[in-house]
Amino acid sequence: MEKRVIEFTDVTLRDGQQSLFATRVRTDDLLPALEKLDDAGFWSLEVWGGATFDVCLRYLKEDPWDRLKKFKQAAKNTKLEMLLRGQNLVGYRHYPDDVVEAFVKKAAENGIDVFRIFDALNDVRNMEVAITTAKECGKIVKGVLSYTISPVHTVDYYVNIARQLKDLGVDIISIKDQAGILSPKVAYDLVKRLKEEIKLPVHVHSQSTAAMAEMTLLKSVEAGADIIDTDVSTWSWLTAHPPNETMVYVLREFGYETKIDLDIIVEVAEYLKEVRKKYAKYDTVDKWPDCQVLIHQIPGGMMSNFINQLKENNALDKLDEVKKEVARVREDLGYPPLVTPTSQIVGTQALLNVVQGERYKVVTKETRDYVKGLYGRPPAPIKPDVMRKILGDEQPIQVRPADLLEPELDKCTEKAYQSGARNEEDVLSYCLFPQVALEFFQWREKFEKGEVLPPQIEELTQEEMKHLAPI
Amino acid sequence: MEKRVIEFTDVTLRDGQQSLFATRVRTDDLLPALEKLDDAGFWSLEVWGGATFDVCLRYLKEDPWDRLKKFKQAAKNTKLEMLLRGQNLVGYRHYPDDVVEAFVKKAAENGIDVFRIFDALNDVRNMEVAITTAKECGKIVKGVLSYTISPVHTVDYYVNIARQLKDLGVDIISIKDQAGILSPKVAYDLVKRLKEEIKLPVHVHSQSTAAMAEMTLLKSVEAGADIIDTDVSTWSWLTAHPPNETMVYVLREFGYETKIDLDIIVEVAEYLKEVRKKYAKYDTVDKWPDCQVLIHQIPGGMMSNFINQLKENNALDKLDEVKKEVARVREDLGYPPLVTPTSQIVGTQALLNVVQGERYKVVTKETRDYVKGLYGRPPAPIKPDVMRKILGDEQPIQVRPADLLEPELDKCTEKAYQSGARNEEDVLSYCLFPQVALEFFQWREKFEKGEVLPPQIEELTQEEMKHLAPI
Ligand SMILES: [Co+2]
Ligand SMILES: [Co+2]
Repeated sequence: MEKRVIEFTDVTLRDGQQSLFATRVRTDDLLPALEKLDDAGFWSLEVWGGATFDVCLRYLKEDPWDRLKKFKQAAKNTKLEMLLRGQNLVGYRHYPDDVVEAFVKKAAENGIDVFRIFDALNDVRNMEVAITTAKECGKIVKGVLSYTISPVHTVDYYVNIARQLKDLGVDIISIKDQAGILSPKVAYDLVKRLKEEIKLPVHVHSQSTAAMAEMTLLKSVEAGADIIDTDVSTWSWLTAHPPNETMVYVLREFGYETKIDLDIIVEVAEYLKEVRKKYAKYDTVDKWPDCQVLIHQIPGGMMSNFINQLKENNALDKLDEVKKEVARVREDLGYPPLVTPTSQIVGTQALLNVVQGERYKVVTKETRDYVKGLYGRPPAPIKPDVMRKILGDEQPIQVRPADLLEPELDKCTEKAYQSGARNEEDVLSYCLFPQVALEFFQWREKFEKGEVLPPQIEELTQEEMKHLAPI
Repeated sequence: MEKRVIEFTDVTLRDGQQSLFATRVRTDDLLPALEKLDDAGFWSLEVWGGATFDVCLRYLKEDPWDRLKKFKQAAKNTKLEMLLRGQNLVGYRHYPDDVVEAFVKKAAENGIDVFRIFDALNDVRNMEVAITTAKECGKIVKGVLSYTISPVHTVDYYVNIARQLKDLGVDIISIKDQAGILSPKVAYDLVKRLKEEIKLPVHVHSQSTAAMAEMTLLKSVEAGADIIDTDVSTWSWLTAHPPNETMVYVLREFGYETKIDLDIIVEVAEYLKEVRKKYAKYDTVDKWPDCQVLIHQIPGGMMSNFINQLKENNALDKLDEVKKEVARVREDLGYPPLVTPTSQIVGTQALLNVVQGERYKVVTKETRDYVKGLYGRPPAPIKPDVMRKILGDEQPIQVRPADLLEPELDKCTEKAYQSGARNEEDVLSYCLFPQVALEFFQWREKFEKGEVLPPQIEELTQEEMKHLAPI
């Protein structure tokens, strides 16, 4: 009998470093790894998007487009992949369609072969423009199911989203378990149903955070998954992803075929182990798994936030109450996944509800926007009494959030060139992050005149890390 | 259909702390955890034996027997378990039978309910006296299969050893994967065969070192394993063992039943997270998995030893040669598992063979003893030409190593009381570690007179850690 081939996407250079070192690794340190990984037999290499774009401009003073061009030159054999947050692109708000289209086209033009496209609420309307644009560019699209646990997030729910994604033309269905809470059992059931009913290749991504991801990938493969995500061992595990070497070894033992050349991976692992030392300042992740997330459905980061904020308010005795309130707020709001940005919305609101002594007495702008539908359609309907308390007589929008946005590209192109942009790539950087891009352009001018040095990673503060949005 | 019950042994307080913090955690820090774990539904708690005995006396200046008595008082509901290295007991050489019998009886008397008994070479003759003594005391015995990979270490090989252990009267067959190299596939096959042919309960222990252990435990359970080993999450993972919370969660998702009360585990996890901070000095384990051990069969510790020693000899370019020589030496010597003490024997000899430029030109005392049979019977015959080169005309012993040892108990009892022993427990400490026990007795005298303080864990040096033998 012919062996089943399991393909791998390496995510070390994007999600791996983002999960372990606050996305701080420089292009020069990534390139030698990329060159070797290019020969190692991966289906693709996820190297761009997510937080890397913002961090390049904001902290590293690197041009993210320049990084992509260099990556493309180095990767002669393997497809390059990026993570795109649907209508949010690589930013933190919805952009109008003209910006989304221009960005996707420019990313394709500069070297992205595979677009991994997701929306935190699984609102397919927020993914549609990015998906169709990438397909028009002739690129491969992984349509993402953003995984979470709730009464509405059943296998049926996800199969239904996958069907919508297939109708939009995605090539691959990607299960993205950003919080590390996808159990091996659910992974097995979900992959099996997707393979049977959607009949597209299935890709699985799971975070190691709760020490569950290796089991989840193994059971996914048993159920028929075609591609899985791993990191090179020395930048793997903990809050990142399962190590490539281990998964290759385990799958081969079971009789699956993989194309990975482990001798090359060993070389890359040794190289990355050395590079890791340079980023020790950012290498602060705990040495143990976060199992609370399995028991209380609350990610470790959110929990430590609560503890800090309650301490400041001299109200640490209310921690249990806040934990319970998170579950209630999440239910009120239609069970949004606890990932960026909805984890912040739910967490802050739960804290306010407890500290104020009255639920929804004080409501953040973000909660109001969420209830109004400005982030997209919640997975389940928002509770009517909560909606009334927050919006009063106002009605939530029924259209896609980006339908309310005016085109921006022309206006921001003009401003961008006034601010120091030199080409279309710069213009897009400016459209996404005007202030950050402006400062980058100004820095670049000075740097070229020899008036400033590149920022040393050692000089960056803990404070800066707080500005980083995960995923 | 009735749910299958999966039982858990918690190993946090013995193997967990030994794997993560060089066994340095004090009784006072362990007791509060033990008291809670006692109510959490474990089948047993592994809390004694291994390196803890030596470290208590040598570094912590604690009486290990006193620790056991305190543990027994704290554990009202749950069986206490110890790791016993067969004829080596908790030391590093073979002891005569009278010492083995006395030690096992005294451990049983002071509170050990379950004896986990192993021999690095799987030479059942080295386990026999300990097993029969423990059974005579009416205790439960887990007979261990010490797992390694080689052409002779097949599933058939292990089933055969298990049969011998069953004939000796063990209650449970225990698969011990100390190096983290037991693949989920082999675990599945081995457990299945053991369940079918040996018809005893099967227990599985696997180190997380290579990020494989969670998968290995899951597949073991699928194949019929009855008991698995875990640590509480905040002292789990990395070079230790899978987190309890995750395994309980995963197995429940699959429909298995466990008796674990996760609310208690969460409390213990929080407590141990705080205790961990006190031992930061010993908490130096790498934050990534050791995957080399899967690819080159060489454990990470051995590899870094080679690198250090070759550097000192200005011969780092010979690293690849040494790696290959390890495999050849291991083959020459009949495929001993690369665990203490045979990993040291093989590693040192391989290094000598390469550095000297001629194989077995220089032979260590340990290699000679091993070839003579003084450690027990090798898994496969030693190559005749290697044996001749090392032993000359001398013949290896055919008997059990301890058959060559005179009784020691009477003589060492006398010396022990002369050296400051106060009771039979002290006598056994002295029989096992004469010099270390003597120094402990002297320290105790002074401490009781108020002349010295207890050693501060902060005062212990890195150098001391080298003396610690793992497992
Ligand atoms: Co990820
Ligand atoms: Co262990």
